[in-house]
Formats: sequence, C-alpha cells, structure tokens
Amino acid sequence: MRTEVCEMFGIEFPLFAFSHCRDVVAAVTNAGGFGVLGAVAYTPDRLEEELRWIDEHVGGRPYGVDVLVPARLDLGDASGGPGGGGGPAAMLAAVPQEHWAFLRDLFDRHGVPLPDFDAARRSTARGAGEQVTEQGATDLIEVALAHPIRLIASALGTPPPRMVEAAENAGVPVAALVGTAEHARRQVAAGVDLIVAQGGEAGGHTGEISTMVLVPEVVDTVAPLPVLAAGGIATGRQMAAAMALGASGVWCGSVWLTTEEAETPPHVKAKMLAAGSRDTVRSRSRTGKPARQLRSAWTDAWEGPDSPGTLGMPLQMVVAEGAMRQINKVAESGHEGARELANYFVGQCVGLMNTVRPARQVVYDMVQEFAEALDRLNAITGSG
Amino acid sequence: MRTEVCEMFGIEFPLFAFSHCRDVVAAVTNAGGFGVLGAVAYTPDRLEEELRWIDEHVGGRPYGVDVLVPARLDLGDASGGPGGGGGPAAMLAAVPQEHWAFLRDLFDRHGVPLPDFDAARRSTARGAGEQVTEQGATDLIEVALAHPIRLIASALGTPPPRMVEAAENAGVPVAALVGTAEHARRQVAAGVDLIVAQGGEAGGHTGEISTMVLVPEVVDTVAPLPVLAAGGIATGRQMAAAMALGASGVWCGSVWLTTEEAETPPHVKAKMLAAGSRDTVRSRSRTGKPARQLRSAWTDAWEGPDSPGTLGMPLQMVVAEGAMRQINKVAESGHEGARELANYFVGQCVGLMNTVRPARQVVYDMVQEFAEALDRLNAITGSG
Repeated sequence: MRTEVCEMFGIEFPLFAFSHCRDVVAAVTNAGGFGVLGAVAYTPDRLEEELRWIDEHVGGRPYGVDVLVPARLDLGDASGGPGGGGGPAAMLAAVPQEHWAFLRDLFDRHGVPLPDFDAARRSTARGAGEQVTEQGATDLIEVALAHPIRLIASALGTPPPRMVEAAENAGVPVAALVGTAEHARRQVAAGVDLIVAQGGEAGGHTGEISTMVLVPEVVDTVAPLPVLAAGGIATGRQMAAAMALGASGVWCGSVWLTTEEAETPPHVKAKMLAAGSRDTVRSRSRTGKPARQLRSAWTDAWEGPDSPGTLGMPLQMVVAEGAMRQINKVAESGHEGARELANYFVGQCVGLMNTVRPARQVVYDMVQEFAEALDRLNAITGSG
Repeated sequence: MRTEVCEMFGIEFPLFAFSHCRDVVAAVTNAGGFGVLGAVAYTPDRLEEELRWIDEHVGGRPYGVDVLVPARLDLGDASGGPGGGGGPAAMLAAVPQEHWAFLRDLFDRHGVPLPDFDAARRSTARGAGEQVTEQGATDLIEVALAHPIRLIASALGTPPPRMVEAAENAGVPVAALVGTAEHARRQVAAGVDLIVAQGGEAGGHTGEISTMVLVPEVVDTVAPLPVLAAGGIATGRQMAAAMALGASGVWCGSVWLTTEEAETPPHVKAKMLAAGSRDTVRSRSRTGKPARQLRSAWTDAWEGPDSPGTLGMPLQMVVAEGAMRQINKVAESGHEGARELANYFVGQCVGLMNTVRPARQVVYDMVQEFAEALDRLNAITGSG
C-alpha cells in the first residue's frame, strides 16, 4: 500500500499497533506494520531493557515509543512547584484518607485480601505516579531517543517544547493523539509531524467525538499533515472505512490485548473475549482522567453513590494502580470477588474481539479484510 | 450504484434522508435517493396533507414515512391503562408543578415572555404528547399506508405486531432503527425487513455505541438482511466509510437541517452552521429519552444543579415542546435570551455542516465525494 505514512516510515501496511507488550510491538513491525511501545508503565531502566529486546528482534525495521505527558497535573497537596511532583511520599500523603478507606471497604466487600496495604501503596506511588510527571516523561524520552526508534508519540496534551526539540535533534518524528480538531490545531503549532485522531469509542484516555466525525474534521484541519485514525478499529473493513474518511493509516490499541502475545491477565482477557461493545465505560476511576475501560465492579463502585469521587491525575493512579495489581494477583487464583473488580482499558471494539490470534495474524487478517472491503465497494459502483 | 437496498427500492443511490420537511423528502427522492418523512410531529390530518403534497411532487418515485413508537411509555399518573395515554388533560395533570415552576423560572431568567402559558401547555399536550402513544402512532400509520409509500420506519423500540402486520398486508417493507446488536436481533425476530444501525454520534434518540463499531456488529448479526448505517454521516467520504463497514446504504438526518429547504428556524440554523462537533449533548431534556441535540442554555439548565430532573417520555415532551415553540417564536425577533435557550436535535456531524445548500445538491455532492473517496482507496492499493 502507498500512503504518506507508508513512505514516511518505509512500511508496507499503514497499521500502527500501540501496545505495552514488546512482543506485540516486534510482531507487528515484523509483519509489515509499525509497533509502538507504550512506555508509561515502565521505569527508565525497564524501558531500556524492553527497547534493547525490541532492537534485537526487529532487524532494523521501524518501531516507536509512546509516552504520556499530561498537559495539566493535579497533585493536590503534593505539588512540588513547577514541573510538578514532590516525589512518591508527597503523592501518597496527598491522597485523602477517605479514598484509602473507600478502597479498603471495596476490597472487604469483595472479599479480596490486602495483606500489605502500606507496601502496596508505596510501590504504587513509585511505579505509577512518578512517570506521569513531566520529569518522569523526560527521563523516559531520553532513554527512548538513545535507541533507533522512528517515532515518539505523546498520548495526552501538547508535547512539551523540550520533547519536540529533543526528538527533532535526534531526527525522530513526533506524533500526538488528539480528540478534537482544536487540539489538532494546537499540536500542529507545537511542531508535531503526525496526528492521531482518536474517536471517543477508543480505549484509554479519550474524548467524546466519534471516529466517524473526528477523522474527516481533523484531516481537513491539519492538511497536508498526515493523520492516523484511532478509536474502534479492530478489523480491516474498519481500516478501509477510516481511510475512506481521509486517514493515511490507522492506530490500533485494543485489538492487541486479546492476542497470543499480550500480557493481559488471563481473567481480563477472558472478560474481553466475552464482552460486547456495550460493556465499556468512560471513567476517571483508574487515572483521574476520562478513560474508556471494561465496566466492572471497580468502575461501578467509583461511579456509585458511596464513592468519595475520583481524584485528579496522577493521584487517582496512586490509589488505583496498586489496588488493581493486587486485584489481578488475587483474581488469577480464581477468586470470584477479585474477578468482578478486575478490568482494563479497552475500546468499544472489544465487541469485535472474540478470538485469540497471534499479533502477526491480526495484521494479515486486517490486510485481507481491507482488500475485501475495497472489492465490495468497487463491485457496488461497478469500478475496480 | 448497486446494493441490496438499491435493488429493493429501485433507487440509484442508497442514501436515505430522514426529514420532517416534505420539500427535503421530495428533493432527495427526486435526486435519486430515498426521502423519509418524520411523522411524529404531525396530527393525522396534517400528515395526510403532507403525503398528498409529496405524492404530487415525486412522480411515483419511492419515499417512506417514519413514526415514533416507544416500546415503553412513562405516563406518570396519566396512564389510561393498556395502550397508554389518558388524553391531553390527563397528561397535563401528570406533570408535577415543580416542573412548570422550573420552566417559568427558566423563562424569567432569560427574559423570555410567556404570555399565554396555559394555552401553550394545552396545545403542547395535544401536539407532542398524543402522537407518541401507541394509539397516536397507529393513527399515523393508517394514514401513511393509504399512500403509495415504499417504507415505514420505526424510530424507537420494536414495532408493535399490528404495525408490522398492517405494513405487510400493504406490501410495504418495515425498517427499524437500532443502537445495539441485541436490539437488531429483536427487530429481526419482530419481522422487520431493513435495519438502520444508528451510532451514538447521531442526532435525536440514540445509544452510546459509535457507528464505526456498531455497523459491522449489526451487519454480522442480521446478515443476510440489509443494513443502513446512520450516525455522524454528512459527507460522501463518510458514506464510503459506512459502506466499507458493510452497510448497504446510509440513513442521514442531521445534514438536511441546514439545507435551503429545511424548516429549521433561522436562528437554530445559524447555530448549527457555527457549531463544532463538540457542541452537541445527549440529553433527556426534550423528550424524556436520551437524544443528541445542540447544547444550549436549555440543556444546561435541565442538566444543572437546580433542575427538578427530566420526566419520562412523553411527559417531558409535554413540558418541553410548547416551551420550545415559544422560545423559537421569541428568538425569531432577535431576542438574545431566547436564542441562548433555542436548540434542536442534531448529530456530532453538525461540525461538518458549514454551508447552506439545496437538498438536491447535498445528494450530488455526496455522490461525488463517495467516488473521490473510492478513487483514493484504489490509488492507495494500486487497484481500481
């Protein structure tokens, strides 16, 4: 296939795979697409290790890294001044007691043990809270740019000037995810090279405008800059649809979560395979910003009448991430209450994710379905 | 073009236009598409008049009628037993005083005069409330089937057996709008001939699953029954996208509201032309069921902290429709407060509706854009 992004990155098929799993990133890149490693959950050392592994497995084929750089942080009392973040201890201290109490009660009601609550809290603050400060993101970007990455993506808000500058100096294009045409305009002004227009049906942090409306709007707004379409796309016919809307390619995240390679906990994978498109919800309960995810007892509780309300980002992550780690640990042994609570970020296209396939096969299937969709359109008009 | 629905209805271009305006219906039908008159706002006599006019203007070309038959009515204390509806007086009486007081206060705050509140209330109950009872819908269906209509559509819920039966006896196919694959399955069981899969970005009564995800789901669910895609579609590239998803054609409502022929009040039309895709909201404030519409001081007030909460359908219509008529009347003279309140049902694609064109031209533009989108896809793959 020949689109602007195929030429820009030297890829055969303009399918970008966002995944936290290095095996998925390498498999998609090796199948002719473009893998993008979601780095937010990693410490700099761990990211270094993951990228070294990818370098060893893609034989010089192109891949990228995605970091989460929130435009605004809400650190409550833990703000350490400009740049944000008074460190893990300050973050922990800034979470109201009410929220810890709610969490304890939620675990109790579901019979989920919490043997070392304080240790979990501390590790959470270090693991989840720290990377989404501007300093945390900068550290990850520095690690990433020391590898032969071909794209650096910013998942939330306008990338800070020093990120754009560092990438430019390294000759690495910058991509940014947007949920509105206004955001796209701002990203172009900030100097990004590629826009990912992500509709509200997407998993993770997302806005409210649907892919069908957002993509043509953004394409018209940022032309001649290329646009990838994201949100709800898990099949080749959806890829054909996105490109009929004017996108130069697609960016998929959810579809990889049920692949063979995915590190999705087995009980969450099973939930996704069984879920319909109605079984997701846009909730602040995991990160503090609206993010689409599987509806579960966790999201219901935080949206429910007894909820203390969610905190901002990253404090809600401090509360949620350690809790979810414990929930998943307990759920893996078959614990019913923990399984009710467990969830993960996923888009409405979870309703179309009904089989476990190797990531490579997902790419090949999408290529095939794309061709079939185009044949059907040509048959309708008598062209082709 | 050749699709199942082109053959089924003998049309050139599988573009269905839902409109309350007979001029739009006739213009689209005469341009090679298929006009569908939204009948809910009409009394049986008025519908008779409109259909006679259409018959005189389409020269035997195919058109249809859409009625709103809610699966469940919430009549509060006005329920007259099975079949629902104790008549206009009972409906009026069932609206809590609190809601009338809220309305009076809302008008006061915006400086909108309400000279004959009681008369407005009475006419509202007759005009808006009555038609959405099962009896009201049945009366409209009877009028419609006496004309050479080629489609009868049910906009909410499963059509009652006697509607399907009456249509079948008259040889008229029945279409039903659905927002989930489960609803589609139920509609097929109820005997409908054509499914309209309407994504959450659509104007009017709508669910939450986006067009990009819903259409392939519904297509797979009801195959080999043909599916029209609805929700967010206002251009030919979106039509191409919808058909890449597997739809046999598209069903558009919003795009006609800013056409030359549309009876949209001029101040509302101006709002729509200026609106972006973010300027809609899914609100119960006009009908009692979630319906996407322009966000305005009206929707903000009903969603706001001082709101008494919305009533069910059709009681909220009794409250809202007369009020909105008065708002529009006052707004037409340039009254600022009334203009702030005014709104209308429209989808997120309002962001793509930026010029006033004849309805005929919208059809021709969509045909042209569809062809261009397909050419682009063929150029990308090297086919075509």
